[in-house]
Amino acid sequence: MKLSKLVGDRFKERPANCLIDSHALMVRGGYIKNVANGIYSQFPPMKRISQKIENIIRDEMDKIDGQEVLFPVTLPGSLWEESGRYESVGSELLRFQDRTGSKMVLGMTHEEASVQLVREYANSYAKYPFMIYQIQTKFRDEARPRAGLIRVREFTMKDAYSFHTSQEDLEQYYQKCYDAYNRIFARCGIPEVAVVASDSGMMGGSISHEYMLLTPAGEDSIAVCPECGYSANVEAAPSIIENENKIPMEDLKEVATPGTGTIEELCEFLNIPAENTAKAVVYQKNEDDSFVVAFIRGDLDIHETKLTNALGFEIHPAVIEDDTVLTAGFIGPVGINEKVTVLFDNSLKGINYLVTGANKVDAHYTGFNVERDCPDAVYADLAKIVEGGICPECGKHTITVSRGIEVGNIFQLGTKYSKSMGFKYTDENGEEQYPIMGCYGIGVGRMAASICEVRHDDYGPIWPITIAPWQVHLCCLRSDDAACKEYADKLYETLQNKGIEVIYDDRKVRPGAMFADADLLGVPVRVVVSPRNLEENAVEISTRDKQIDKQKTPMDDAVTEVERIIKKLIDDIYKHVK
Amino acid sequence: MKLSKLVGDRFKERPANCLIDSHALMVRGGYIKNVANGIYSQFPPMKRISQKIENIIRDEMDKIDGQEVLFPVTLPGSLWEESGRYESVGSELLRFQDRTGSKMVLGMTHEEASVQLVREYANSYAKYPFMIYQIQTKFRDEARPRAGLIRVREFTMKDAYSFHTSQEDLEQYYQKCYDAYNRIFARCGIPEVAVVASDSGMMGGSISHEYMLLTPAGEDSIAVCPECGYSANVEAAPSIIENENKIPMEDLKEVATPGTGTIEELCEFLNIPAENTAKAVVYQKNEDDSFVVAFIRGDLDIHETKLTNALGFEIHPAVIEDDTVLTAGFIGPVGINEKVTVLFDNSLKGINYLVTGANKVDAHYTGFNVERDCPDAVYADLAKIVEGGICPECGKHTITVSRGIEVGNIFQLGTKYSKSMGFKYTDENGEEQYPIMGCYGIGVGRMAASICEVRHDDYGPIWPITIAPWQVHLCCLRSDDAACKEYADKLYETLQNKGIEVIYDDRKVRPGAMFADADLLGVPVRVVVSPRNLEENAVEISTRDKQIDKQKTPMDDAVTEVERIIKKLIDDIYKHVK
Repeated sequence: MKLSKLVGDRFKERPANCLIDSHALMVRGGYIKNVANGIYSQFPPMKRISQKIENIIRDEMDKIDGQEVLFPVTLPGSLWEESGRYESVGSELLRFQDRTGSKMVLGMTHEEASVQLVREYANSYAKYPFMIYQIQTKFRDEARPRAGLIRVREFTMKDAYSFHTSQEDLEQYYQKCYDAYNRIFARCGIPEVAVVASDSGMMGGSISHEYMLLTPAGEDSIAVCPECGYSANVEAAPSIIENENKIPMEDLKEVATPGTGTIEELCEFLNIPAENTAKAVVYQKNEDDSFVVAFIRGDLDIHETKLTNALGFEIHPAVIEDDTVLTAGFIGPVGINEKVTVLFDNSLKGINYLVTGANKVDAHYTGFNVERDCPDAVYADLAKIVEGGICPECGKHTITVSRGIEVGNIFQLGTKYSKSMGFKYTDENGEEQYPIMGCYGIGVGRMAASICEVRHDDYGPIWPITIAPWQVHLCCLRSDDAACKEYADKLYETLQNKGIEVIYDDRKVRPGAMFADADLLGVPVRVVVSPRNLEENAVEISTRDKQIDKQKTPMDDAVTEVERIIKKLIDDIYKHVK
Repeated sequence: MKLSKLVGDRFKERPANCLIDSHALMVRGGYIKNVANGIYSQFPPMKRISQKIENIIRDEMDKIDGQEVLFPVTLPGSLWEESGRYESVGSELLRFQDRTGSKMVLGMTHEEASVQLVREYANSYAKYPFMIYQIQTKFRDEARPRAGLIRVREFTMKDAYSFHTSQEDLEQYYQKCYDAYNRIFARCGIPEVAVVASDSGMMGGSISHEYMLLTPAGEDSIAVCPECGYSANVEAAPSIIENENKIPMEDLKEVATPGTGTIEELCEFLNIPAENTAKAVVYQKNEDDSFVVAFIRGDLDIHETKLTNALGFEIHPAVIEDDTVLTAGFIGPVGINEKVTVLFDNSLKGINYLVTGANKVDAHYTGFNVERDCPDAVYADLAKIVEGGICPECGKHTITVSRGIEVGNIFQLGTKYSKSMGFKYTDENGEEQYPIMGCYGIGVGRMAASICEVRHDDYGPIWPITIAPWQVHLCCLRSDDAACKEYADKLYETLQNKGIEVIYDDRKVRPGAMFADADLLGVPVRVVVSPRNLEENAVEISTRDKQIDKQKTPMDDAVTEVERIIKKLIDDIYKHVK
């Protein structure tokens, strides 16, 4: 490919709306173009990267006996009604009507479609286990698309579904897929991806894992214990609090606390630490806007996903417009309006002395004790785990919290979909059983952007050779010099005939512009042909990662040396593939 | 791949709802599964066929300097408003709103998206010409999906867009693409595909061609002149009528024609041939249901696409609920209600004597002459060309009409999209110009189904080897016979190690069931291993097309012979690739 013909612009200025580097570089490098909020077209370099990632995924899926299929992007609403998700999933599920008025949805994941495809076929135990997968466009109507290809509305995803006749068989296959995922990330040049326990959310099922690429640009938080190796998404990491009672139990007593609508104001007024308070955090049920109050120790924060899971319904942060039900700033569990759903975080267990709202303006209770004053209290794990918190695995105060991008996930779904959709098989004894399912996803575009996020410098991406749009970037520094051009043309042809993927820049532009473009395209091996080098009978070879920098190589050895470097770069990646 | 593990059912009974053979065979063979009206999932064999077709298309597009990109499936309505198609395209364009209430559409074709992608990039003549293409899911909300994958609502399509600075350059590239398309069809095993002139319809532009696979199952009609080679879709083939005046001109005279609401009844009543009548065919404008009447010689039929093009707006067949505007059965041009849009087909030119409706119940006019009685008549070519009609090229009465499936199309779009979307470049003289565009489409699933339609027997598809899901179907007739199983297992492994794609049936089923499945999978080379053959130190090799039938081949030569046959089958296909 000649660079002069490559469709797409490259430019220097960082676009104003790009909050993270990978987004900025992929716009500046002519990889993607925004079409609508969270919707992008792909220029040729991005399409090439996508295809390479897809082929690595395909290869690893085939190796674990996956069979590639294709499900539709547009699905009948009735299929999602069968599983119950037509109602239960929020507005990320895009619902529309076709010309006949039939309910349709845009597929955001394909559990229902996978069951629909195989439920007649897989009617006997002899057909199991099996796995089917697709690589296809998905749509998720995200409220806040952001960060380029990291969080979009339309994206290409590999989604796989496995079917089993026993939990043991699912677990064995799950492990196979777990390993295949590690190989996929290693082959794509990011072996450092960490596997963490996760919350299954709307997918259902129990055990699930996320593959996290740790980077400050990530929007997920991961709790890691460096002592014992425990790691989990904070939404799945139990927050463990051990309370000590420093103060003996007292009676519940209403005290005047004028103007103390926040925990900070309250603690200052009473001169107590925040951990001596029971803080109220208010949400509303999406369905009917009724109030939900979660009480938690004043120094901790509610994790909304944990709360949603504990409640079993969707919620949003509350807007309290009047005090007919709740008295904002002074809400407490004692005497709270009966219409309100109340939950207590585990952090409030076993504290003798707490300050909490008295459900009147400018008044709080002191001496509050949940067990005594609210004997019917329902506890749950609702708190965000904190830096220095207790590790749920080894029990030490060693938890650290890092940011990461979720680049893949795997779920043990169990029988959620087979049961709700009436999908059964006959076992060896002639009995009807529900198949046990697993599902396994990787977003292709997000993977490319994540790799860019952790493999770039100020000038552009540093693509791992296995997914780079090309392997070699050939620069002819003076295409107006006949000898120089002739040699470069010939080298281009020779490299291509060897099966090497070359992007060839023979434009008549300044070397600075040429190198800036090469940096933005991030191709691993760069070969520079210039009259000055040719005088010395040499070409200059560099790698984008600067391991090799302007290495003079005799002209006659250029092709062999390029081949050697490519092989070494590939070998370096495969060293991490287990 | 072992057949025992292949996901999907194969069965004998023809499904009731399948009107054409390819549909029935692709359901019976476990290729596709219906998900909703006109929406299918693909089982592994279909996915494999699709990928092979896509790779052939990709290869040919790359050879004519195409650059692969990816456009979104979901597009902002505003982009289609720019081109005017948000309003002009009918309800095949699926419009919906996202969660913020923004207008969106599902991409049915991507002219707008292609302009959006390149309009900043392609701002100078030096960037031209170039072509970009994608292979991506499309959605078209067809009113009447039918015939399996032939006419669906969701489908995978390759769509390409080329950009030029002159009509000559477009024409040169158009020819390249024209040839590439012929190579694609030949490589997919259907070199007989015919290129015909077509109507550009909603795409705009002037010159366009369709690639037609002739088969009685096709839903398009193609006019062909065997004398001069002229061929066109009937919607694009001008109907030429030369009228002779057998009867001298008479005066316009109202006659009572009781109970003659149809042309047949009228002709019988007056004892005249249908060609002596001016028939009224009534439609309604989609926008406001106002009436449109097309008059045509009584023996001919209106072609609705021609009429739509002549009118410039969308129509549907009329429902006349009362006679306040039109008197059904007795409609004529003289004295017709002024609110009605009236058009005359060219076939009514130059006839002295016609019978036509008098716009009253049970009355017609005789002696009607369009030129005299309707001096403001607007003529257009509205008639369907007929078998034995006049060839527009050579003028002989030689037209034949055949059925065909449109498997591809190419359009010279001109500046329709660049003008409407404000897309300009600066030419060599510093002047602003509108780029000239071409677009080029092939539906992948329709191609597979069409090939099945013309390459099958009663038992299943006969896939050309270049697109077959596998190359070899290996049957072990007695997997309970240890020696037989061992040899077959080894042959399976050896063939696979040679890079040959094998589907291996080692199930314990009757030979009849095994062969029926093999027929349904339509794999080109079949190798049968059985104890009886092994006794003779042989295997049995057949081809699905019966060119080779149960050829006994010595066991030691089996692999070489299979390789030879595969090579021959491929060579046979490439003989037709120019």
